[in-house]
Amino acid sequence: MQGVGPSSKFTSLITVMFLLGLLAGVAHGGRQRNAPCKEMTVYYHDILYDGANTANATAAFATQPTLLSRSASVNDTYFGEIVVFDDLVTAGPALSSEPVARAQGFYFYDKKDAPNAWFAFSLVFNSTACRGTLNLMGAYLMAEKTRDISVVGGTGDFFMARGGLYYFRLQVDIKLYECYDV
Amino acid sequence: MQGVGPSSKFTSLITVMFLLGLLAGVAHGGRQRNAPCKEMTVYYHDILYDGANTANATAAFATQPTLLSRSASVNDTYFGEIVVFDDLVTAGPALSSEPVARAQGFYFYDKKDAPNAWFAFSLVFNSTACRGTLNLMGAYLMAEKTRDISVVGGTGDFFMARGGLYYFRLQVDIKLYECYDV
Amino acid sequence: MQGVGPSSKFTSLITVMFLLGLLAGVAHGGRQRNAPCKEMTVYYHDILYDGANTANATAAFATQPTLLSRSASVNDTYFGEIVVFDDLVTAGPALSSEPVARAQGFYFYDKKDAPNAWFAFSLVFNSTACRGTLNLMGAYLMAEKTRDISVVGGTGDFFMARGGLYYFRLQVDIKLYECYDV
Repeated sequence: MQGVGPSSKFTSLITVMFLLGLLAGVAHGGRQRNAPCKEMTVYYHDILYDGANTANATAAFATQPTLLSRSASVNDTYFGEIVVFDDLVTAGPALSSEPVARAQGFYFYDKKDAPNAWFAFSLVFNSTACRGTLNLMGAYLMAEKTRDISVVGGTGDFFMARGGLYYFRLQVDIKLYECYDV
Repeated sequence: MQGVGPSSKFTSLITVMFLLGLLAGVAHGGRQRNAPCKEMTVYYHDILYDGANTANATAAFATQPTLLSRSASVNDTYFGEIVVFDDLVTAGPALSSEPVARAQGFYFYDKKDAPNAWFAFSLVFNSTACRGTLNLMGAYLMAEKTRDISVVGGTGDFFMARGGLYYFRLQVDIKLYECYDV
Repeated sequence: MQGVGPSSKFTSLITVMFLLGLLAGVAHGGRQRNAPCKEMTVYYHDILYDGANTANATAAFATQPTLLSRSASVNDTYFGEIVVFDDLVTAGPALSSEPVARAQGFYFYDKKDAPNAWFAFSLVFNSTACRGTLNLMGAYLMAEKTRDISVVGGTGDFFMARGGLYYFRLQVDIKLYECYDV
């Protein structure tokens, strides 16, 4: 019997310590970075209007580059040019592969001595498998091979989602770290 | 006495199981979607400048539609047109009802074969009852009756708020699922 | 021994009550607003292109003010003017002090009878001390001395960050209330 009491006391103490640790984690320092609660890989196709490709184009510039862009040189950086898009997102890398979403939003060029961009858009899913949107924004650092944009919210199947989008060439890896049951 | 020991042990075990369950919920799968911590219904009035209504207009287009819009037809989709607004938000559906906030931000049309839009804006509250902003962004799917936009942050009375805005005609239902005490 | 059992039971009960309190906090009402998990003070320099300062300018307007702005008067409010920027952010108030980040994004003027703005941008950190971005958006209320913009996401060292940016003259105080270990 003597063994039971102290052991029980000990278990409770451990429990309280766990609990306080958890509270402390919420209250102060950094949270633990866990595995994503949802992951997807999709492919993104941006077809910019060039004056002739009306049938295929899914993006067009809404403003001209500013004079701060080196617009007269071959090193044009398009500073200030805003592009609006409704781009196709597919399951595989080919443009003809299964459509899974539209990427609807805008980007603009924001550096005067090198091309660099900033994006804000929604991934709009509308299939039998998946309905809802992911809302994203952030710097699109063109000097980096992989560009990382924040998922700041979502609707429908992606209610209140948070996480990141990792872009490399056509490929987009989406990792959500906050998901809610639907 | 024998009853006390095991019962106490049992309670501790349950507690630890609860705790591990909580940790697991944070670490892996979806979180539970709870009831909103705050709900509001307000009404939104967008009065676009038409060249003559300077006194009443609260919104104006900052760019012309792109050539990718079917701008010469009656089915004009305004693709690429950006509108900046500082719109009145009221307590009731009438424009003359009590003002509760301003909606300050922009939207643009982003589809070439049908009207569709994307919004980013703040609801700016400034009354004795309520001071602070809600920051929102997302696709505004004009083919849907109800449009759902993410609340991705807030300031003042809406410190760190998250949730969604549900728009149907003039009516805007705001549901916050993450609130902080002020 | 009699003392051990009840005391242990009591501890467990307290533990369970703590736990239920924690669950309740997540489930329903407002969360407690804790101290920031990270704080920084930096200085922001916006040098707008004026037609002559190409070497120094870091921002340029991408659109002209709309006709809804009182553009012909000295009280011009620039309604609808969009500015794209890649501004320097420094450790001290002097432009020549240590560079710590770039602020890349855009703002626009959104009020017809007084100057007022709306911002969305990223703070891009890229030093040995700190790599990553903070993504921000919100109303920039020019009638207020201090302007408060939401931090809605982050990447790299600022993975999934949330919080607020408090602007007063050049000075920017950043307070993060959600941080993740890196």
